[in-house]
Amino acid sequence: MKPIAVDAFGGDHAPKEVILGAFLAAKEFNLDIVLVGKENELEKSIEDISKDFSSNVSQKITVKDAPTIITMFDKPSVAIRKKNSSMHVGMELVKYGKACAFISAGNSGAVMAIAMTVLGKLKGISRPAIGALLPTVNGSVLLLDAGANVDCKPIHLLEFSIMGSVFIKHMLGINKPKVGLISNGSEPGKGNSLVIKAYDLIKSSALNFYGNIEGNEIFSDKIDVAVCDGFVGNIILKTSESVPTIIGDF
Amino acid sequence: MKPIAVDAFGGDHAPKEVILGAFLAAKEFNLDIVLVGKENELEKSIEDISKDFSSNVSQKITVKDAPTIITMFDKPSVAIRKKNSSMHVGMELVKYGKACAFISAGNSGAVMAIAMTVLGKLKGISRPAIGALLPTVNGSVLLLDAGANVDCKPIHLLEFSIMGSVFIKHMLGINKPKVGLISNGSEPGKGNSLVIKAYDLIKSSALNFYGNIEGNEIFSDKIDVAVCDGFVGNIILKTSESVPTIIGDF
Repeated sequence: MKPIAVDAFGGDHAPKEVILGAFLAAKEFNLDIVLVGKENELEKSIEDISKDFSSNVSQKITVKDAPTIITMFDKPSVAIRKKNSSMHVGMELVKYGKACAFISAGNSGAVMAIAMTVLGKLKGISRPAIGALLPTVNGSVLLLDAGANVDCKPIHLLEFSIMGSVFIKHMLGINKPKVGLISNGSEPGKGNSLVIKAYDLIKSSALNFYGNIEGNEIFSDKIDVAVCDGFVGNIILKTSESVPTIIGDF
Repeated sequence: MKPIAVDAFGGDHAPKEVILGAFLAAKEFNLDIVLVGKENELEKSIEDISKDFSSNVSQKITVKDAPTIITMFDKPSVAIRKKNSSMHVGMELVKYGKACAFISAGNSGAVMAIAMTVLGKLKGISRPAIGALLPTVNGSVLLLDAGANVDCKPIHLLEFSIMGSVFIKHMLGINKPKVGLISNGSEPGKGNSLVIKAYDLIKSSALNFYGNIEGNEIFSDKIDVAVCDGFVGNIILKTSESVPTIIGDF
């Protein structure tokens, strides 16, 4: 398998935590990993961390130099012009067949915009979506769009349903993933004007459509893919993540 | 103070639990309560429950007959035509000055529609909203709209902000309630097209506007009023309620 490219300068406590993660993944999954970022800054950390791993693991880690860093404050429109960034260089490794995937824990708007610019979109897909695989009582659910597209048209929700189904089929081996459309009521006809129109589109597709699901059913294992626009998805994700913290504070 | 009218046939385990709640409230807050609903069905339960309370409390509870029940399956358009329902009769007690408020735990779409028909709207308010007072780490937050209006215009979010501020000021005694606009990012300019326009409207009002708040800040005590459209509010409410259940199931 081709190596996986990883943005060494994306995410909290980068690059150190990212490098450590790369070593752990290389060991656990027997993967080759290319860390992308400022070469001179990476080498010292890699040397330190490699002491805790066998040479078998260490030789699975390589570095690809990328002198520029995209911060959390860079707007996507600015980020796409930073051609030497770790995101841009990493994405090009995929484009030119040097890596099979690119992973970044950095500025998600920038990752999205650079992916669109460098890799483009699949035929038939007009907007990319952010998919978040969330834990449920007995498994997981893919929430998408988790934040890429704040204003959507019905066709976009159908496209998200298709992409989510393909992802879950190949990543989790579920043959006919159940797609739920997030709404304010389970009955057909419930929803805002976007969701009501998307319901009909998804229902008449070849997907395994469960129908509308309410907020309290997202984590219930009734569905494999939960579809919504990126505004709603972002709020669901952040609200859900915050609730356990609050309970802990009581 | 005038009595509070209570829909004896609305909500889970009505009328028994509702009657019990009325007795407890009458005792704890020294309130007069009118239970609205099928008189003959109510009297037996009232007799049973009153055995556990002093006659001082029991005489605070009266009954107003309303022969029809609105179910959870009645559409608002059907519900408003059931003129003898407990909701309709209870709402009229307020309209004609016989009660100072009407409480129902029943079909919220029906309550909303009947309130609109019988009581109308305040001047300057084009849509009613459902307000949900939710617990936070150190207090509470009023989420509105929690489900009445699935498609909103920017002006509606301003109106919800005004109603929420008035409610919190009078109910919790907070002089200048902080209003947060629920969005996918805290910076001005973040949001879907509805929220971006509503931001400017609320900002130029006389309200104490905190700005945008993200999903993980709703329960953080940074704000007193959290404003969103009813589609988003319904999903936030149901998702938040479900998370603790799921943690319990793990």
